[in-house]
Amino acid sequence: MIVRTLSVVAAVFVAIAATPHAQEAPPLLGFSAPSAVEQYELERRFDEQLQADNLREWMRLLTAEPFWTGSPYNREMAEWTAEQFRDWGFDVEIEEYQVLYPLPRIRELELLSPTRYTAMLREPPVEGDATSAIEENRLPTYNAFSADGDVTAELVYVNQGVPADYEVLENMGIDVEGKIVIARYGGSWRGIKPKVAAEHGAIGTILFSDPIDDGFVAGDVYPDGPYRMEHGVQRGSVLDMPQYPGDPLTPGYGATADAERLAIDEAPTIMKIPVLPISYSDAAPLLEAMGGPVAPRSWQGGLPFTYHIGPGPATVRLHLEFDWDLAPALNVVARIEGSEYPDEWIVRGNHRDGWALGAADPISGLVTLMEEARAIGELMETGWRPRRTIVYAAWDAEEPALLGSTEWAEHHGAELREKAALYINTDGTGRGFLNAGGSHSLERFITQIARDVDDPKTEATVLERLNAAIAANGDFEEAMRDDIRLSPLGSGSDYTPFLQHLGIPSLNLSFGGESGGGSYHSQYDSFDHYTRFIDPDFAYGVTLTKVTGRATLRFAQADVLPYRFSNLADNVSMYAEEIEEIADRMRQETTQRNRLIQEGLIELAADPTEPFVAPSPDEAVPHFNFAPLLNAIAELESEARAYDGLLQTVQAQGLSASQMARVNQNVMEIEQLLTDERGLPKRPWFRHQIYAPGFYTGYGVKTLPGIREAIEEREFELVDEQMRRISDAIERVNARLEEAAAVLGRPVT
Amino acid sequence: MIVRTLSVVAAVFVAIAATPHAQEAPPLLGFSAPSAVEQYELERRFDEQLQADNLREWMRLLTAEPFWTGSPYNREMAEWTAEQFRDWGFDVEIEEYQVLYPLPRIRELELLSPTRYTAMLREPPVEGDATSAIEENRLPTYNAFSADGDVTAELVYVNQGVPADYEVLENMGIDVEGKIVIARYGGSWRGIKPKVAAEHGAIGTILFSDPIDDGFVAGDVYPDGPYRMEHGVQRGSVLDMPQYPGDPLTPGYGATADAERLAIDEAPTIMKIPVLPISYSDAAPLLEAMGGPVAPRSWQGGLPFTYHIGPGPATVRLHLEFDWDLAPALNVVARIEGSEYPDEWIVRGNHRDGWALGAADPISGLVTLMEEARAIGELMETGWRPRRTIVYAAWDAEEPALLGSTEWAEHHGAELREKAALYINTDGTGRGFLNAGGSHSLERFITQIARDVDDPKTEATVLERLNAAIAANGDFEEAMRDDIRLSPLGSGSDYTPFLQHLGIPSLNLSFGGESGGGSYHSQYDSFDHYTRFIDPDFAYGVTLTKVTGRATLRFAQADVLPYRFSNLADNVSMYAEEIEEIADRMRQETTQRNRLIQEGLIELAADPTEPFVAPSPDEAVPHFNFAPLLNAIAELESEARAYDGLLQTVQAQGLSASQMARVNQNVMEIEQLLTDERGLPKRPWFRHQIYAPGFYTGYGVKTLPGIREAIEEREFELVDEQMRRISDAIERVNARLEEAAAVLGRPVT
Repeated sequence: MIVRTLSVVAAVFVAIAATPHAQEAPPLLGFSAPSAVEQYELERRFDEQLQADNLREWMRLLTAEPFWTGSPYNREMAEWTAEQFRDWGFDVEIEEYQVLYPLPRIRELELLSPTRYTAMLREPPVEGDATSAIEENRLPTYNAFSADGDVTAELVYVNQGVPADYEVLENMGIDVEGKIVIARYGGSWRGIKPKVAAEHGAIGTILFSDPIDDGFVAGDVYPDGPYRMEHGVQRGSVLDMPQYPGDPLTPGYGATADAERLAIDEAPTIMKIPVLPISYSDAAPLLEAMGGPVAPRSWQGGLPFTYHIGPGPATVRLHLEFDWDLAPALNVVARIEGSEYPDEWIVRGNHRDGWALGAADPISGLVTLMEEARAIGELMETGWRPRRTIVYAAWDAEEPALLGSTEWAEHHGAELREKAALYINTDGTGRGFLNAGGSHSLERFITQIARDVDDPKTEATVLERLNAAIAANGDFEEAMRDDIRLSPLGSGSDYTPFLQHLGIPSLNLSFGGESGGGSYHSQYDSFDHYTRFIDPDFAYGVTLTKVTGRATLRFAQADVLPYRFSNLADNVSMYAEEIEEIADRMRQETTQRNRLIQEGLIELAADPTEPFVAPSPDEAVPHFNFAPLLNAIAELESEARAYDGLLQTVQAQGLSASQMARVNQNVMEIEQLLTDERGLPKRPWFRHQIYAPGFYTGYGVKTLPGIREAIEEREFELVDEQMRRISDAIERVNARLEEAAAVLGRPVT
Repeated sequence: MIVRTLSVVAAVFVAIAATPHAQEAPPLLGFSAPSAVEQYELERRFDEQLQADNLREWMRLLTAEPFWTGSPYNREMAEWTAEQFRDWGFDVEIEEYQVLYPLPRIRELELLSPTRYTAMLREPPVEGDATSAIEENRLPTYNAFSADGDVTAELVYVNQGVPADYEVLENMGIDVEGKIVIARYGGSWRGIKPKVAAEHGAIGTILFSDPIDDGFVAGDVYPDGPYRMEHGVQRGSVLDMPQYPGDPLTPGYGATADAERLAIDEAPTIMKIPVLPISYSDAAPLLEAMGGPVAPRSWQGGLPFTYHIGPGPATVRLHLEFDWDLAPALNVVARIEGSEYPDEWIVRGNHRDGWALGAADPISGLVTLMEEARAIGELMETGWRPRRTIVYAAWDAEEPALLGSTEWAEHHGAELREKAALYINTDGTGRGFLNAGGSHSLERFITQIARDVDDPKTEATVLERLNAAIAANGDFEEAMRDDIRLSPLGSGSDYTPFLQHLGIPSLNLSFGGESGGGSYHSQYDSFDHYTRFIDPDFAYGVTLTKVTGRATLRFAQADVLPYRFSNLADNVSMYAEEIEEIADRMRQETTQRNRLIQEGLIELAADPTEPFVAPSPDEAVPHFNFAPLLNAIAELESEARAYDGLLQTVQAQGLSASQMARVNQNVMEIEQLLTDERGLPKRPWFRHQIYAPGFYTGYGVKTLPGIREAIEEREFELVDEQMRRISDAIERVNARLEEAAAVLGRPVT
């Protein structure tokens, strides 16, 4: 048995064999001892099927031409992919939705004064990159769901364009009203930047990739190294996804051919101003032409001149027009029905569309999903069938706004809430350490998988290597934790509709940390780039397949679904503490800042030769009643401990089939009990009370979002109601855990 | 009476008058109430004399031609300056020392491969800067006390070239043995960089000013703004001053014409390898030609390409030859004898030599010293005489190694230890907030001065503005402290021989914080640069004159010398705590790091595709006996409180003349009791047990240096002995304070 330990030297040289002999299978959450032995044998056979060459050759094929949603190659590959799944023994459907998919017709950006420069707005071929010269069906560099517009105005440099940057501008007396802002990528999801700019009255936004973030300051640029070269552009969506993702015309329901649709000008998530992404080669002449105050030190990027804020004298014209047509989102959905529990589903997805040639994003993930399915097909060839239903999904139209997955999840929402026990997402992968995010009830489950899979480049397991990195990074305590801590999920990939809209327990998995680069959403995210710099031998691709394959197979085969709720309690308790600390710190900082303002000290400390606008005092931060939440969490800790303990005990003794069925039905729905039909303030689509993307971070998660954002955004009047909703959700879980424990034989109190 | 408070609004609008009416003088440390009234009247008359135009016109004259030590204009201005002091009524001498002063004969730097580039090594004229085109007697760009050498080797980029950077290189398996290193300025005093390079076997060092530090990344470059333009070079000394400053041939005694001298090749402080400073325009082709691993993120500078570490393929030839001649250091020393206490001296100094045209460094400080002396001359015109002796000194040859001041202090050491009550240093000044460093016994004294001088650009006092900045910066507690905390002094200016060799209480004063720039030690530190960007109307120059003038006059006139020892106790106690914390942290970090190494976790966490050399475990950090030190400090707190308290009481009651004389003689020597004749480990010249420049920081201070450096440098066997010496020094102070208190009427215990 492999004991999890920091004594890696011993572990490495003594206990190398990751898959133990059948007779001595380590304990496996949700499996009886005999089932565990069978499971390990199944996984051994699964692993035997895996071939790195499949990943490589599929990637070569899938990235041979542009395959954005609506392109010819997208449809061709949908059909090819469906065919593969069919060959492997799955029932396959291409489920098609008609989604709004704007395509650029006019893209013009010109510096009009004090000098003239016409932006190139294109990515030239690069030596040694076979696909970089492809012109046919190439999608230009643009931001999907930008508004149409033809605007001319002075530029203002707003750093990363997040709310805090506008506070700095305000204190300098600089207003973006009627201006075009130029913001560098980073600090938030890109869609936040034009949204905040528009909130402040800007009439256009230019986004650029600063070399300090993923260009030459970070490392050698393509093709010498993996980082963004001077002409590389980050395409991407600017739909207001923190409001709701998916088709902007069909909020909350599937964008089927005959669905009712909002008019485009009614759709609340479409950006209100024109937005265009550019390279640093196009950004440099604009930034260099700017005057006004020198940008604060932390705003200075990597270009070789001093950045100024403006406004002007640089004046630009930004002219964008789009064709606002519907396009077909082709989700390839393959399934094999469970032999014992056909109505308990494991859904495993990765998107299949990309902005350009998308080798890393999304194909590196898609090929691991395909290899997983192929290996399971091989198992099925021998007559094996999963106990539960497995659904493989290759989502289309993820890039513009999680369109394919969201429409599918909305369309099949009722069935999914009834049947889905787990959604497993990937979205590309690289080299290095396991990145695991997801529902905290899955921590023990993931930890056991990481314990059982070897890192391909060292003599250690994936778990040992991850914990070594955490320890080497200085966090011994975290490295010693019983389980991997799953990062809570914000947004940015297809798990969002499953987790945050439907409340289905979700995972998001990849490897990374040793394959940095700057090809993201550019023409240079190619087969050549990937196989030179990211995972040249697809060793980590295969390792990810072992990880996700185990996740799929263990959930499909477990006697009792392998949730462990003490981990949920542990993390939620930590989040509550964090938020109490945030409130305390904000209260103290507000008091101090107000005092500084009221006593004139900020002004007195400011350089009298620089422009200065005295800040206004903030509303004092009240004390909040955390008691309902803390009481609910305390009970959760106790109920979870009881259920988790009983599961372990009865698992050893064996459970009757009907007990198992009843427990599974009970616990499958627990994540859903954490949702609230009323959703979050300002965005009812987001129902989960524990996890949400931040309203002003976009991808970055906000845990316990109802109270966290109410406090952070100083909407203090919302806190009590949100506290109640979160507490109620936890109390629903507590009651359900009590019921589940009763099934396992605990007397009802 | 002005109460020190954070309620600046009230202070500003109610109590604007900084100098109160004669009858209601605020309490003044060391003055009886009637003396204080007189003193305020004296200071009022002093202030009336001050004229910003003098500062401007003297700066214009003094910076009209290069005035490095040994140049014709240096001698001409020595004589002119002496003449001014004579005109103002002082006894003046030009005290001349013959100091080693190498001047470059050959300076060649060439990139030989993979491309060729010959470094320009010169600073061209700049539009709008009248003196930038001066060629006659211009001192080339070089590092004084570099070795002669003609070396050819591959380059290695070592970041800032401090010991921690070499640990990073070691872990990457990169050795600088036999290589030429290229280091950017910053992170330590420049002389540390070639010293550490030579310790690691490098055969040459190139220093460059990276734009990330004081070039375009920091702000607009000259002449558009104050920062370093592409051709600006930072000259400077690389003598091993942390060993001993001053003439390398006459350690510890004055370099008089007939002094015995070491042979040049015996002088231990002369750099062992050739060193040359270059601009970023000259550095760019060298750095861009380098290969090898990408530099760590924090090593990346502001040039527009990815920095690599090498070694090579860039190969350079560095050829330097110097004329190793003696030059005359001309100290202008002016004095007026005290009417009551001629043998109690206040020494007030600023250097008078510069690398190029030195407007900021040193002339902006020198002109404040001159204006102070002129104003005192005006007071003397009316028949007034100081009670104590005042000595004004314009030091020569500070730039190459504090030569003028050190030789003078060594030459007159015995007399100074007998007579000097205070050394007040300035070394250039700018715009903004008071920067005050020095002996902690002077904190109350400086605080009362800052309380009594108005900031020239706001409606607040210098003290209020400084505390506003500290509070606005988030440190409310420090802003509320009873007194300004004086920064402990390391090195980098002429206070070093007085404070750290002789043990004379010292101050170093300037204004700054709102006048950043990059003209330091370049041709562009000019009158034009200073009057455009630093202190255009000399308002802060005049304010500094008010501050230093009060410091001189209050020490000259006080009934009892205005030291307050509770502040010494407070700070020393803080330092002891810091060092205990450092030892505890090092102990914990060493344990953790050794564990990571021993369990193979650092290797396991490392990228297997990158070069990696496993680090070795460190010796465990033992527990040290801090008890002697803490006991001595506890007694110091008590003795200091008693003395300070008695001084306040008896001051109110009045003291007899003989009491005053005895107390003053007692307390004048207290700082000297903090020195130890044996000096610090590896550097006996540095005797002060509380303050020293760091052996591996150069300018940066190390407080309680004997124990702090022994612990930091893991020379644990030294700690006990050093702890004893520091404790003994503090106990000598305790005994002396008891004697002084007895003179004031406290019963001897």
